[in-house]
Amino acid sequence: MIISPLQSARYQYSPKLPGMLRNGISEICVKNGAPTQSVADQEKIAALFPNTYGKNEITFQKGENTAPAKKQVVGMILSGGQAPGGHNVVCGLYDALKATNPENELLGFLGGPSGLLEDSYRVMDDEYIDKFRNTGGFDIIGSGRTKLETEEQFAIAAEVCKKHGVTAIVIIGGDDSNTNAAVLAEYMAAHNTGVQVIGCPKTIDGDLKNEDIECSFGFDTATKTYSELIGNIQRDANSAKKYWHFIKVMGRSASHVALECALETQPNICLIGEEVAAKKMSLSAVADVIADSVAARAAKGMNFGVAIIPEGIVEFVPEFSMLIAEINELLAGEKTAQFNALPTWEEKYAFIQNGLTAEAMAVFAILPQGIQQQLFLERDPHGNVQVSLIESEKLFSAMVSDKLAARKAAGTYNGKFSAQHHFFGYEGRCAFPSNFDADYCYSLGYNAFMLIQYGFTGYLSKVSNLSKPAEEWVAGGMPITKMMNMERRNGKDKPVIRKALVELDGKPFTYFAEHRQEWAENTCFTFPGAIQYYGPAEVCDLTTRTLALEKA
Amino acid sequence: MIISPLQSARYQYSPKLPGMLRNGISEICVKNGAPTQSVADQEKIAALFPNTYGKNEITFQKGENTAPAKKQVVGMILSGGQAPGGHNVVCGLYDALKATNPENELLGFLGGPSGLLEDSYRVMDDEYIDKFRNTGGFDIIGSGRTKLETEEQFAIAAEVCKKHGVTAIVIIGGDDSNTNAAVLAEYMAAHNTGVQVIGCPKTIDGDLKNEDIECSFGFDTATKTYSELIGNIQRDANSAKKYWHFIKVMGRSASHVALECALETQPNICLIGEEVAAKKMSLSAVADVIADSVAARAAKGMNFGVAIIPEGIVEFVPEFSMLIAEINELLAGEKTAQFNALPTWEEKYAFIQNGLTAEAMAVFAILPQGIQQQLFLERDPHGNVQVSLIESEKLFSAMVSDKLAARKAAGTYNGKFSAQHHFFGYEGRCAFPSNFDADYCYSLGYNAFMLIQYGFTGYLSKVSNLSKPAEEWVAGGMPITKMMNMERRNGKDKPVIRKALVELDGKPFTYFAEHRQEWAENTCFTFPGAIQYYGPAEVCDLTTRTLALEKA
Repeated sequence: MIISPLQSARYQYSPKLPGMLRNGISEICVKNGAPTQSVADQEKIAALFPNTYGKNEITFQKGENTAPAKKQVVGMILSGGQAPGGHNVVCGLYDALKATNPENELLGFLGGPSGLLEDSYRVMDDEYIDKFRNTGGFDIIGSGRTKLETEEQFAIAAEVCKKHGVTAIVIIGGDDSNTNAAVLAEYMAAHNTGVQVIGCPKTIDGDLKNEDIECSFGFDTATKTYSELIGNIQRDANSAKKYWHFIKVMGRSASHVALECALETQPNICLIGEEVAAKKMSLSAVADVIADSVAARAAKGMNFGVAIIPEGIVEFVPEFSMLIAEINELLAGEKTAQFNALPTWEEKYAFIQNGLTAEAMAVFAILPQGIQQQLFLERDPHGNVQVSLIESEKLFSAMVSDKLAARKAAGTYNGKFSAQHHFFGYEGRCAFPSNFDADYCYSLGYNAFMLIQYGFTGYLSKVSNLSKPAEEWVAGGMPITKMMNMERRNGKDKPVIRKALVELDGKPFTYFAEHRQEWAENTCFTFPGAIQYYGPAEVCDLTTRTLALEKA
Repeated sequence: MIISPLQSARYQYSPKLPGMLRNGISEICVKNGAPTQSVADQEKIAALFPNTYGKNEITFQKGENTAPAKKQVVGMILSGGQAPGGHNVVCGLYDALKATNPENELLGFLGGPSGLLEDSYRVMDDEYIDKFRNTGGFDIIGSGRTKLETEEQFAIAAEVCKKHGVTAIVIIGGDDSNTNAAVLAEYMAAHNTGVQVIGCPKTIDGDLKNEDIECSFGFDTATKTYSELIGNIQRDANSAKKYWHFIKVMGRSASHVALECALETQPNICLIGEEVAAKKMSLSAVADVIADSVAARAAKGMNFGVAIIPEGIVEFVPEFSMLIAEINELLAGEKTAQFNALPTWEEKYAFIQNGLTAEAMAVFAILPQGIQQQLFLERDPHGNVQVSLIESEKLFSAMVSDKLAARKAAGTYNGKFSAQHHFFGYEGRCAFPSNFDADYCYSLGYNAFMLIQYGFTGYLSKVSNLSKPAEEWVAGGMPITKMMNMERRNGKDKPVIRKALVELDGKPFTYFAEHRQEWAENTCFTFPGAIQYYGPAEVCDLTTRTLALEKA
């Protein structure tokens, strides 16, 4: 097998543990913190988690290891989208487990949660593990999107665990997967299965974050990769001086990725979904924000620029959500066939005009024709508009182009506008983890095993103080129920981990808001370049601007 | 001004010169080689370049500098698309020029060749130059696509040079720009202007390459950046196991970029335009190559993969070029208005069906509707199809999807096929230059000044033996006319530098061809990761696989 020079070199990297975990397994003891309460809806959540609610927060510290020495068989699951560092969680878990007792075993369930349900797994050993140290991807055991959430699934899981003598399951996933980890932990405790469940916070989206979780892993590497590319494109724009680049970045339900990339690269424009929603901005108002920057720069002779667009932006625009709901209604059931039978777009358009309310039609009318057609022609098996397929970067560049034409006619703009479009998502989810993610993930995995050894369940592996050098990081655990509240999901009230949106009064957004007018009118681009794994610490080891500002 | 940590660190990097240029300006002397002949059409080219044809190849070596000590005022021009390392050519040129005589001056003409014609320039000084050392982009003076090729332009250029006492011009560009540099050199010599002209080989496309030019600068960094992203996507594909990624990479007239990326990443499929042309493959045959890989992998349970598509691929397909020619003919002159007046696509389609030959219509009929419409609806100001806008990655994934549906109906395929699309171009043109490009470019610039000091004109700055450590590189100059032949361009025979296409009997393609069947059916992905500027030499300093294979 051929491997790249960087991959060979990364095999030699030793991830840094928090200082308190560096004294060897036999010198790690538990320090109990205070009992916890859920962030909201305490009574309801306490009632739903009678066996796992209200436990203490804990941290580890140097001291005699007093954990029972029983043999552990740990099963692990990678859940959902890839995030750089997942392999290091596995390696940290494996190393702690084997250092504690060479008889211990680590089973990797294959292809995500379904691997547990289908009893499909691989036993980890040195030879296999060593091929994945400090590499990107989830290919060590694969991932999947099956949700572990029903009693039937839990019963099967308990049976599979019993069959293999599994004493604990580590679930590496996002907010939903960790919510489900808490529910599974409660089930396992309620049924006296003896199986512990520990979660690890993963997602490049950065929306699994709260007063206990400083950041989810993968966010650092993914945003650094996108920022590398955005910076390169900015340099190109500033050299060629002829294009506006509309760059969409991953992140459907929150705009953390876009915001972090903006802090790293200082583009002319970065849209933030949470702000668009809070201000109830219309599509037209959003396009005007961009057009204002284009016009201001054109007036200074600069007919080029860069705008960052978060993937989920249109879903934050109230009038757009209203339009989508009406379209779904308009084509429900048999009406789809009726619509499809209309032979020309003109006839279809008339049908739409008759069917939508005046408000929705007003929104529809300003969309570029390509997007109009997409809304009606590409629908999912249930007949619903596939909002995720909407190319919002092209939507906004087309709207901006229309607005500039109107301004030109009105004599308020006299520049040139030519756009290029990009979408960055898959490019960053499986990069070699940055030193930060390599260290953080290894620590999360190592720490997860310490939680297992000390008998905790329903806990999230927690490593904090992350804006400091790894030596000063704090390792411990937090009951997942502490992060929960009740939310309406699919018509039912459910206990869930609260998703972290961009806070408009938070320091990262505030910094951005204070600088964006200057960035919009001038050229303040910064060029982060490629992730560096070697070299000066200030180049290799710093984590995100978001975390630096939050901890400032 | 805020700059990134990597940019600060890169300011400290000292580019490596060839060993023979390391002894200081006063210890560089010329070693004459043999007189040269053009690669073809010797008589015609000799007649066109009476003052600059047939000169000796030269190399530099250690020895007393015998060049006249006259004050030099050098003008430089960045021509055409950005390529990583351009700033280092400027820095190398500047450093050699100032080390020789602090009175020497370097003028940067702004915005490409038009800066020379419009007498628009900036004088370089330490403070300004130091901000651009080892950085990407061409923003130090900007670039442009104006071609310097007419007598009128040359006369203006001579006048501008005279006005500022310019003694030499350095043109940093691709094959066309260096062709024009040779013509300008001849003009300046014939008119006794005293202005020398030196070229430097730039292009990320890698098609300015011949027995004298081992590679153009920027190719290394750009292909490494694209390979980083392709490798990341491959790792994602291999983790999620649900998508085929169709990745288009820049490179219109040759497929060197695609081939180098394939050698770096070992994807399942990489199309090579030159092979498609040589084998006169149809669109359908090309799509079958991909569909065969999809089917073979599906039979092994792998419904995912990666295909690299060179940007210009459709132009290499003979039947497609024929179709384009017929469409341009069909819509020439007034017929465009007639076509546009047809109210529905169905009527337009009937018009097309009537107008095309049966052969062209057969090709048109198999195209996805989106591409069909694009061919007719988006045309340039002359009414011609804009081939460059064709999204060939989507064209082929749609055709593959159709083929797989047919195979499924025939019972010869039973997999799932879901595609994602990417295009990488702007992402790599302005990256921080790799150590290789930083060194190579600095050397090209330094060396260009030595050619100037020794009075040469019509030469290309030549640095060779590049697959070896910089210490062993060979610096010198080659008359540009040596690389020329006569070609038909826009209906006229012109002397031009022969463009380098991928050679189907060359070592890089041969290596690829020997391995691609294995790569197509199995998963042999390699993951190069981000460009590293620090760390082990085998990670930081190696140039392309293409050059390694060519020099093996």
